[in-house]
Amino acid sequence: MKIELKEGERIDRLERENISIIQSNQVFSFSLDAVLLADFARLPHTKKGTIIDLCSGNGAVAFLLTAKTNNKILGVELQERLVDMAQRTVVLNELEDKVTFIQADVRDLSGVIPKDSVDVITCNPPYFKVAKDHLTNKLDTYTLARHEVCLPLEELLQAISGLLKMKGKAYLVHRPDRMADIITLARKYHIEPKRVQFVSPKKGKESNIMMIEFIKNGGLGGMRILPELVVFDEQGAYTSELTNILFGEHHEG
Amino acid sequence: MKIELKEGERIDRLERENISIIQSNQVFSFSLDAVLLADFARLPHTKKGTIIDLCSGNGAVAFLLTAKTNNKILGVELQERLVDMAQRTVVLNELEDKVTFIQADVRDLSGVIPKDSVDVITCNPPYFKVAKDHLTNKLDTYTLARHEVCLPLEELLQAISGLLKMKGKAYLVHRPDRMADIITLARKYHIEPKRVQFVSPKKGKESNIMMIEFIKNGGLGGMRILPELVVFDEQGAYTSELTNILFGEHHEG
Repeated sequence: MKIELKEGERIDRLERENISIIQSNQVFSFSLDAVLLADFARLPHTKKGTIIDLCSGNGAVAFLLTAKTNNKILGVELQERLVDMAQRTVVLNELEDKVTFIQADVRDLSGVIPKDSVDVITCNPPYFKVAKDHLTNKLDTYTLARHEVCLPLEELLQAISGLLKMKGKAYLVHRPDRMADIITLARKYHIEPKRVQFVSPKKGKESNIMMIEFIKNGGLGGMRILPELVVFDEQGAYTSELTNILFGEHHEG
Repeated sequence: MKIELKEGERIDRLERENISIIQSNQVFSFSLDAVLLADFARLPHTKKGTIIDLCSGNGAVAFLLTAKTNNKILGVELQERLVDMAQRTVVLNELEDKVTFIQADVRDLSGVIPKDSVDVITCNPPYFKVAKDHLTNKLDTYTLARHEVCLPLEELLQAISGLLKMKGKAYLVHRPDRMADIITLARKYHIEPKRVQFVSPKKGKESNIMMIEFIKNGGLGGMRILPELVVFDEQGAYTSELTNILFGEHHEG
């Protein structure tokens, strides 16, 4: 399959899933966050279910999820250029039957996705993502990303809650320093945090990534903390756990 | 020093601190929780400060803290029999100048400890503690402990907040399944969770103990997740980290 690459674009491989993905450093490259989120999420494998990836970027999470479920996946992304990249990646991998992307604002999906209808939502929100292609200075870029100007955490969690059906599940990857905000706001919108995994860059280091599973209208309490995931060993090589997530056999959700 | 042991009592050693502690299986024995909490807490070492251990039981946490600070420590415990044991342990170890225990309800310390006056609070609350010496049946014991009848989590956090001075710190050991409740209630009473450590019984197992540091009127967010602490290695022996906490050199807070 011959696909046109635009300026600054390249093709990277998702090894375990055998998918080629169009990337660009000019807008957004998927990171370890996407790989960890897709691995963490538990999907209905055979059962018919609606699966949505919010803030889908160039589609990395959605493409990774195709290996874990027979259900179709819908990616929702605000930036046209990223949607365009994701759509060309669909063609490149002949995944037209499994993944679709739409350009939309997560806060304004009425008329696109019915309220209380979604079984599973994944989201790698834009806490470091550049909001616009062209910005006047770096401070603005940084400020936009850090302050979640384009999609504040509260509006994201509210949107997730509105989309999920009763007992539907959401999976979020975020930074541990926002954990208290995430938990407090999640409870406000009736999505109960149930399962958390922290990721440490190296043994003995503080966590810099966290994944959380929420259940809409889940009973309060009962949070489970999974074993810490460590990315690099003492020699700076991937640990066996990470090697397995990146290159190993697939475990199903 | 000859100390009278009452029926069912024995003397255990806190190895690292070189303290002998009176224990009893009939009422309450200190556990790993106490050792982990005392190790996790960061105390003012030289500066004059008020340090209180709430729900002090037989005094294990308070005695462990004496090795980390030159400040005096006050233990507060509801059950007379435990206060009596702790007071005999004070004499046994000749620690009269460093630790004092009082029998009191944590929720009713007005007239005993001034409001907004405490620098550091530690607490290993009674989530599995037997509330009374004599109970008619085991189900009742279990129910009392599980449902925190004697000291609900919310009342504990409210009491901690009332006692702490601005920017004072509290250290709590609890169960991860209560984490969302703890964070939500802590914010309600303006004690912000800032530093968390999860403890796993064995590598690859979910966490069953957590320690949290709160700062009264601390800025929102910025929670740090310390590296996971693992208790036992693959062979069922203490890991080197645990060995160090139980028997090793003291690190100061």
